[in-house]
Amino acid sequence: MSVTTFEELSLEGLQDIYDSEHQITTALPKMIEAATSSDLKKAFKHHLAQTEEQITRLEKVFDLLGEKAKRKPCVATKGLIAEGSEHMKEVAKGSLLDAALIEGAQKIEHYEIASYGTARTYARQAGKDDVAALLEETLKEEEETDQLLTNIAETVVNRKAAAKH
Amino acid sequence: MSVTTFEELSLEGLQDIYDSEHQITTALPKMIEAATSSDLKKAFKHHLAQTEEQITRLEKVFDLLGEKAKRKPCVATKGLIAEGSEHMKEVAKGSLLDAALIEGAQKIEHYEIASYGTARTYARQAGKDDVAALLEETLKEEEETDQLLTNIAETVVNRKAAAKH
Repeated sequence: MSVTTFEELSLEGLQDIYDSEHQITTALPKMIEAATSSDLKKAFKHHLAQTEEQITRLEKVFDLLGEKAKRKPCVATKGLIAEGSEHMKEVAKGSLLDAALIEGAQKIEHYEIASYGTARTYARQAGKDDVAALLEETLKEEEETDQLLTNIAETVVNRKAAAKH
Repeated sequence: MSVTTFEELSLEGLQDIYDSEHQITTALPKMIEAATSSDLKKAFKHHLAQTEEQITRLEKVFDLLGEKAKRKPCVATKGLIAEGSEHMKEVAKGSLLDAALIEGAQKIEHYEIASYGTARTYARQAGKDDVAALLEETLKEEEETDQLLTNIAETVVNRKAAAKH
């Protein structure tokens, strides 16, 4: 058993999400390139810049905990990104691929919402309010990104995609 | 390009979640076995029965669409479950593993929330209200399960886990 304390479990969660965010910074430029809708391209570009800030924020968290920032390979994010890459190969470019890109991005957003939600709750439980506040900040951003993507899908992309028979 | 219409993209999403639900019915019995908290065991058992109903509901959806129920291997769920299995091997059994099991289950719930949310929105866009209503029903259940797990974590499990130094 390599994880025997709550601190170790919490730390492992942070290392997982730290790796996940790095994987996302590699995936997003390909998604920006593949997107057709200008609203979607803009949203992905904004989220890429935001993800880089979130990485810096995680480094602050590690620092506050007196730990080195370390990546633990996140197999779940790897699977989520693989699913998105598959879509990029098989879905016709244009509004249809835009819809598929949003679908993939929202699945990743939800992985992050669950991860940051747990990490924030663990930090609160451990009485580390400064850490919890930083994680809460990112959690809110992820929830906003998810909502923004829903709006783009519902107002523009899906209607155009649905016109393709 | 194998996906060139909105119907094909929607169908592929349903086949993905249909596979995902099947994978979950295989993973849950191991999670029930590994859990220590009676509340958590009960929640997982309830969710297993619910997942079986959700599979039947998806079969109704395929039926309404005039399609055969078919599984498309979901690599994302495979990754999410692999992450949970890893936890079962490395985290000390008891309240600490209970916390880790909740973390893993909530990540899976969020995958499903994103998937059913998209599938429901696609069905609405296509004017298939009967399909959208069935998917909405499952979406609500997944959101309730996520909330129930948060409650168990916050009221019982995390406090006990945090007492482990």
